This record gives sequence, C-alpha cells and structure tokens, in this order.
Amino acid sequence: MISVDEARARIVSAIRATPAEQVGLSEAWGRVLAIDIAARLTQPPADMSAMDGYAIGACPGAVGDELRVIGESAAGHPFTGTLGAHQAVRIFTGSVLPAGTHAILIQEDATREGDRLRINEALAPGKHVRPAGQDFRRGETLLSAGKRLGARDIGLAAAGNHAWLAVHRRPLVGILATGDEIFLPGEDLPPGGIVSSNSHALAALVRAAGAEPVVLPIARDEIGEIIAAVSSAARFDLLITTGGASVGDHDLVQAALKHSGMELDFWRIAMRPGKPLMFGQLRDMPVIGLPGNPVSALVCAILFVLPAIAALSGLPGEAPATVAARLAVPLSANDRRADYLRSTLSTEAGGTLRVSPFPRQDSSQLKLLASADALTLRAPHAPAAAAGDEVRIIRLAGFGI
Amino acid sequence: MISVDEARARIVSAIRATPAEQVGLSEAWGRVLAIDIAARLTQPPADMSAMDGYAIGACPGAVGDELRVIGESAAGHPFTGTLGAHQAVRIFTGSVLPAGTHAILIQEDATREGDRLRINEALAPGKHVRPAGQDFRRGETLLSAGKRLGARDIGLAAAGNHAWLAVHRRPLVGILATGDEIFLPGEDLPPGGIVSSNSHALAALVRAAGAEPVVLPIARDEIGEIIAAVSSAARFDLLITTGGASVGDHDLVQAALKHSGMELDFWRIAMRPGKPLMFGQLRDMPVIGLPGNPVSALVCAILFVLPAIAALSGLPGEAPATVAARLAVPLSANDRRADYLRSTLSTEAGGTLRVSPFPRQDSSQLKLLASADALTLRAPHAPAAAAGDEVRIIRLAGFGI
Repeated sequence: MISVDEARARIVSAIRATPAEQVGLSEAWGRVLAIDIAARLTQPPADMSAMDGYAIGACPGAVGDELRVIGESAAGHPFTGTLGAHQAVRIFTGSVLPAGTHAILIQEDATREGDRLRINEALAPGKHVRPAGQDFRRGETLLSAGKRLGARDIGLAAAGNHAWLAVHRRPLVGILATGDEIFLPGEDLPPGGIVSSNSHALAALVRAAGAEPVVLPIARDEIGEIIAAVSSAARFDLLITTGGASVGDHDLVQAALKHSGMELDFWRIAMRPGKPLMFGQLRDMPVIGLPGNPVSALVCAILFVLPAIAALSGLPGEAPATVAARLAVPLSANDRRADYLRSTLSTEAGGTLRVSPFPRQDSSQLKLLASADALTLRAPHAPAAAAGDEVRIIRLAGFGI
Repeated sequence: MISVDEARARIVSAIRATPAEQVGLSEAWGRVLAIDIAARLTQPPADMSAMDGYAIGACPGAVGDELRVIGESAAGHPFTGTLGAHQAVRIFTGSVLPAGTHAILIQEDATREGDRLRINEALAPGKHVRPAGQDFRRGETLLSAGKRLGARDIGLAAAGNHAWLAVHRRPLVGILATGDEIFLPGEDLPPGGIVSSNSHALAALVRAAGAEPVVLPIARDEIGEIIAAVSSAARFDLLITTGGASVGDHDLVQAALKHSGMELDFWRIAMRPGKPLMFGQLRDMPVIGLPGNPVSALVCAILFVLPAIAALSGLPGEAPATVAARLAVPLSANDRRADYLRSTLSTEAGGTLRVSPFPRQDSSQLKLLASADALTLRAPHAPAAAAGDEVRIIRLAGFGI
C-alpha cells in the first residue's frame, strides 16, 4: 500500500497537459490558457478624463477666471482641435483629453452660461486624468499560460483586443462502470440489482472539473466484455473505471486492462474509504480504477481524479485545499490508513469552523455523503483526538461536488 | 441614492424563478432542482455484506466450529436457497445475504479447504451487515427543490432510480453594450476607440452563474438604435445593459428603455465603484443597467447580477459571502458611499487572512481588477481604520470570476 500523497504525485507526474486549441473569446471561460497573451493596444489609448466636466487650456486657473467653451469631446467623438489659452472643451468620463489640455475642471466646480465658463475651484493639473497606458501598454503580458480564465480575465483579454485565445483542449474522460449487479437509472431492477450511480456522479464531477465526460455502456462481469469496452476507450485523455476492484475473487477489471496492455503502476492506497484504487497507463492513456462503492468512488475521485484532470488541463494538479476546523466530538486513534470522514460543519461565534464527523462511516451510504459539508482528514496512525482539537478538513461545497 | 442592500433586495424581490423543465440526469449537473425527488427504491434493497467472507447459517459460531460451504452469493448473482444449520455461503462486499444468515465471517477469520470452512474468530451477529434501507427507503425524499445539483446529488438521484429531473430552466440573459467609442475584440480601432470588454466579461460571468448569455450587437449612441436593440430583447429572462448610464449629457439608455415602456425602479446606489446602476421592469423582464467602466460593471455584476441570476434560477439570491481579514495598511475614513476596494490577499502564520487594497482604485483599471484576490468592503461613513483592523472581504477566486 502507498500513501495518498505518493499516489497523487505518481498520477500527476505521469500525465501531460492536452495540446492547445484556438477558441473564440466567447468559448474561453473556464478554460486554461496555453500561451501567454500580450496587449495588442495601449489602454487607455490616450489621456482620458475620469470625470464629467471641462478640459481647460493654458490659464492661471484661479477661482473666478472665465473661459470660452469651444467644443466637446465625447466618448467615440474626440475633439480634434487644440485647446488654446483661456479655452475650454466639454468632456465626459472616458473622453479623450484634447491637445493643449492644462487641467480638468469637474462640472460641480464650474458655472456655465452659453459658451462662457467660470471656474469656482482652483485647478489641479493632473487630477482626474486617466493617463494613457494606466491600465496596460501594447506588448505587455496580460495573462499567462496556465491560468484558468475567469470572467475578469475574459474581459481583460477583450480589452487587449483578442478575439481568439489558445487554450488547452478540454480533456475527454471515458467512464466505464462494470458489474453484473448494476443497471441504468430508470430501469426495472432484478432482485439484488442496484442502480449504477457512480458513472453519473463521476460524469458530473468530470464536468465540474471542466472536462468532457463520456459514459460508456455498463460492462458485465465477463472478461471479454470488459476487454472490448477497454479497447473502445483508447482515444480518451483519461479512462476511469469503477467497480471490479474490490470484489475479491471477481477482480476482472485489472485482468482485462492488463490483458489489453496496461502497465500497472499501483493498485492499493493506505486510505479509507477506497483502499483498492488502481492507476496505470494503457499505451499513452492514463487509467484510474476506482472502487465500486459510491462513497469510495467519489472520495477517491476528489483526491485523485480532480488533480488528474487539472494536470490534463494544464494546471498543477494539487491536492484539494484543506482548512482548519475544531472537532465537535472526540475521535479514536487511527490505524495505518488515512481516513476521510464524512462530516457536517457549523460556524461558532467568532467564525471558527466546527466539524462533526457522522457516527456511521459506511462507504455505501451515498445519501450521507450528499449531505456532508466536508471531509475530516485523519492521518495514518493519528492519535486519539478530543472535542475541540484542531483538524484539517476538505470543504465539499465549492467544488460543484 | 439607495443602499447596496436595499438595491439587491429590490432586485431579488422583483424576480421570479424560471419555470421547470425536464432534463436527463446527464444534463442536470449545476442546475437547480424545481421539484423534490423521492427514492423510487430502497437502498440497499436487501441486507448486504460490507466485507468479503462467508454468510453463516445457524450454529454456535465458536472458534473451531466447522461448516460446509454450499454456494456463493456474488454481486448480481444472489444465492437463491436458504442457509441451514452449519452451512455457509461465500459472499463478497455488496453481496445479498442469503435467507437464514445468522452472521458474517470475514475471510481473514476463516480457513477453507474444499467445501469445509473453519471458524477462527467468534461470530458477532449483525456485524459487517449493511441492512436493507441503510442508505434510504423507497418514498423517502432524497433531494429538495431549490438545491443546486452537485456531482454527489446526481449520484444520489441515480441511486434513487431517477433518469429524469425537473429543474429550473436555465435563465437566458441578454447583454447589450452601448457606445460610439466601443468596438468588437479583434477589430481595428479609430483614435479614441476602445474594445468592448464588458459584454464579454459579463457573458462569462453569466455562464459562471449557470445561466445562458446572449451578447447583442453593440448599439451606437443613437436613441433609435438603442430602442430597436431593446425591442429585440423582449424575450430574455433578464436584460443587462452596460454603458450609457454615466456619460453625463449622453444618457440615452435609460431614455430608450423608458420610451420602450420600462418602469424604472431606481438608478443610483450609494456605492463606489458604480453609483449609476439602474434597475427596472420592461413589461415582465427585469433590466439591470450597469455602468460602462469595466471595473464598475464587474463589481456591480458581482453584487447585483449574480443574486438576480440566482433568484431566476430558483435560489435565494443572497449577497456574496464575506469573510473576515486583517488590513495590511491603514485606510482613511469613508464618505457616504459603500466602497469595494480591489485588494490582494495573503495568509499570515496561523491562517489569518491579510488584505492589501491597491493604492489606486480607478474604475477603469481592468488589469488591476483581474489580478485582485478580493474586494475589501468599506461601509458608508466607516471611520478610519488602522493596519491590523478587521474588515470583511468578498473573495473573488471561487466565483469563476
């Protein structure tokens, strides 16, 4: 058995990011930039006004000075002449300042009658100006490769005059559930039959991670059928199997994958839920074999599939973020397997998180997992912990999971 | 001018959730459930084994007892007979327990030779059993209306044998940018021209919120053109305009909307960036008019458009979550407008968040906004604050924003 951290490190180091594709700006949200982008223009392109008011030409600019308004500079309609002494041009927020502008007089500090303008507050040259290039200059790097693009980044790329961006291709992730006992949602079930929930939960998790899931038909517990399913899966960026890894005498998935040419890296991890987790490479395709229990499958997916998809997407593939919380109940000492306890959270006065692991942690209880707010981490051989002790948790809400 | 909280409350209370549609389970991730779903079966359907081992029929079950193995119960292939006294059936994790099962003997505690089985550890009836209905029972509510469906929920709906779910229709959000000075990304710009970044940033934000954006062609600063654009937008669940609200003498958007029949609710909010924010109803369609400055537009979108889309989606439409942080620098007293300072975050030893507002907060600086980790909140009339004082912040990373 290997540790959780070693397992994730081996998976991530075996995975290369997908190649780049060119997508329109409107399709780039949530994608990971593959090539730096530099500004194709300077923003603002010229000195602009940050306020509504008047651009003032050369003059003492004292209270009581009178000037003549000779025109207007509106957004999209810059004033093309040059401001002379004792002249003013009407301007608005975002107006280009005319040549010859000495200072800006905001409209609250002006009295205007016809084309006569009176200064009611002494001028402060440079104030209320957005100088050319204040936001960025042509050629400056706006966004770097490896960044997952949020709405602000899309806006920045647009402002830099980019209509197309090079992003990593969305990873295509095949999902293969195996088992004689599982059936598609909505079907009539025979005695002992259960619904295949893993494929659909994993497909949603793959989507949440920004990749594209392909749910393969269920393969029965028959090695020929599993080999056929695996051979149809050769073009994915990642293949996830579920089931067949913890059924004792009936472990056909690993056998079928090995028969198909998979090089097995590891298949047991010192963790609970989910010891029998498999990783290998089938030609160039990474394969992660998850346990069949729905809770084990999803917890392992959070710990290993999300980092794998991140690595495929051009991101580092880090462990899920943890935060500190205080135990609401005592916990007994842990054995040699890292434990991920399904837990609820509350917030104490003062803002401290308080975490309550469910008393029952059976890995078949999907409803409990769905109602959990967090996973409480217990390191291998962690000593007994008292109520109030600090532990690390993985919050589940933020993942779309 | 009204407060930020009042503005959001008015927007959210004027919005009704979109009606329900029926979607396949594979399309339901991220959608908001419109109707409760109840389990269509009991899970587990029968008492099942939590371990690999043997189901043991009636017997004393002491160490050294010998039994006869009469068959096997594998996943999908339950044993159909009844266990008699001193009989055993081979079982695996997830196997249905045969009728007549007295206890489970895990395989580590058994010695088997042919069909003879020896008990090496005293039996504990009830142990290692997943009783029927442990996860949920037929008819039990699994997920309630108003829940945004994560991967775990999709798995739970599948496990409850649902192939179809009723979810709120994805809100369709029209985005109309106006202005003579703005052009599409990738175009050649005339002097004073800038790229329309708001539409594209807002479209990404709409997507991040789980809604569907429709970017309308840019309308020039001409009232007839804006009226025509507005009339083409009548079928959206929400119309967002940007620009035309802070250009002083040139406020054509509000005029065009009123001419088209919009009832104006409010148009000024005591906040910075973004005072000139408009809200109204055009027949049944809510309209939010955002400022034209890219930073103001995005900050206002976080504060008002995200709650509006949440309300349209069947969620409560709450204010963005805030967390506590300590100021890295002092701040001067605030005026009567709530301030949302673009800021970076770091984490001190001990885990406390430390927030540094950028020294320059001009609302045209999109690159600064894109590099910000958080918005630092300053209430109206907040007194001067010292470095180390606690403030509330909105973290920007988690939104896809």
